[in-house]
Amino acid sequence: MKTLIIVSHPEEDSSMVQQFLKAGADTLKNVDRYHLESTNKPWSVSDEQNKLKEYDRLIFQFPMYWYSAPHTLKKWIDVVFTHSFYKKELSGKELGIVVSMGVSESEFEVGKSESFTLSELFRPFEALANKCHMTFLPIFPISLFVYKTDLEQKRVLVEYQRYLTMPNQSTFQAKEQWFVERLEALEIKGEYGELLMMAIEEIKTNRQHLDDLNLALKEMKSD
Amino acid sequence: MKTLIIVSHPEEDSSMVQQFLKAGADTLKNVDRYHLESTNKPWSVSDEQNKLKEYDRLIFQFPMYWYSAPHTLKKWIDVVFTHSFYKKELSGKELGIVVSMGVSESEFEVGKSESFTLSELFRPFEALANKCHMTFLPIFPISLFVYKTDLEQKRVLVEYQRYLTMPNQSTFQAKEQWFVERLEALEIKGEYGELLMMAIEEIKTNRQHLDDLNLALKEMKSD
Repeated sequence: MKTLIIVSHPEEDSSMVQQFLKAGADTLKNVDRYHLESTNKPWSVSDEQNKLKEYDRLIFQFPMYWYSAPHTLKKWIDVVFTHSFYKKELSGKELGIVVSMGVSESEFEVGKSESFTLSELFRPFEALANKCHMTFLPIFPISLFVYKTDLEQKRVLVEYQRYLTMPNQSTFQAKEQWFVERLEALEIKGEYGELLMMAIEEIKTNRQHLDDLNLALKEMKSD
Repeated sequence: MKTLIIVSHPEEDSSMVQQFLKAGADTLKNVDRYHLESTNKPWSVSDEQNKLKEYDRLIFQFPMYWYSAPHTLKKWIDVVFTHSFYKKELSGKELGIVVSMGVSESEFEVGKSESFTLSELFRPFEALANKCHMTFLPIFPISLFVYKTDLEQKRVLVEYQRYLTMPNQSTFQAKEQWFVERLEALEIKGEYGELLMMAIEEIKTNRQHLDDLNLALKEMKSD
């Protein structure tokens, strides 16, 4: 599966969260990244459309400005998603949203300061995905990133990497598998490497126990 | 009450519906109109903000592009609605949306081609109005304008003029009054003028009958 991140941010270089996400995405295979405001000439519609064809998952990544995306992303959508293109070339792909916000996620709720949920506010993107016969992924919100602890930020990074690369609606087993593969790919040597190997073995052994238990449960039910 | 229409349309001159609405707005007192794409230099934030202060009702008028406004309107909002401005200068004003669409209004419904209602799709504008302590007016949709008959188009025009100038949530009586004032302002002479005068008298007489009936009903209830 190939993923393309389409970033819209007027000041990407000075955005701590964007730089952090960039570092996280750069280590991943089959993930490419594209910053809209960095292109200094008008987009070629056919070039943009051809680029999108290569990918299975598209991610719109941006800071929330007035309950939506910055205008540059909207401009890009209006230009690139032509009738003849979206009707046949986007069907079956996935569309995700990574949105950074200066307000806590818990405020997006009736009776709170932002009144509406993110699901409600991003209906236009959901409607776009529907129209293009794309699968709309769960929204990935990152709120108040700069106030998070190191550990919290690292957790965001791992979740973000999963969001970019893992199949949608994965089972617990698939998530486990994803982690084992990621850990093995680290190829850390020495003392930490051995610790890591032990952790991986532990996860695999747990999985065997779980599988055995599930099998036993299944047999009991069929009796 | 003063109204400002903020139009966003990349090709306003060749848009039949925009030209039609323009002609309708031009005849109204206390209604001004401003086309964003016609400004050929960067907006001055303070000039834009000062302009808005003069008006009681702001109308965003645009064709629907991918379930939202064209990017230029979004850009203008992101630039002009600064924190210090919206916090104190917009409170108590009204915000309306006039949106033209190439799809029938009845398609904006669950199970139909567009799946979501206009109320759902325009949540970001409603959230903006809430944040600025503005009253969000009912949405004014104009669908498939070019396919309407002359009479239907004229009806849209009258409804549009009411949308721009009449107090929100008006009673039937206020609507009647609005029509009488508009008809009297036409000052048509000759045969048609006399017919019009008769129509106005008719409306006024009906109103007296209605008032009498209401009074009688009220007395009966209090007995």
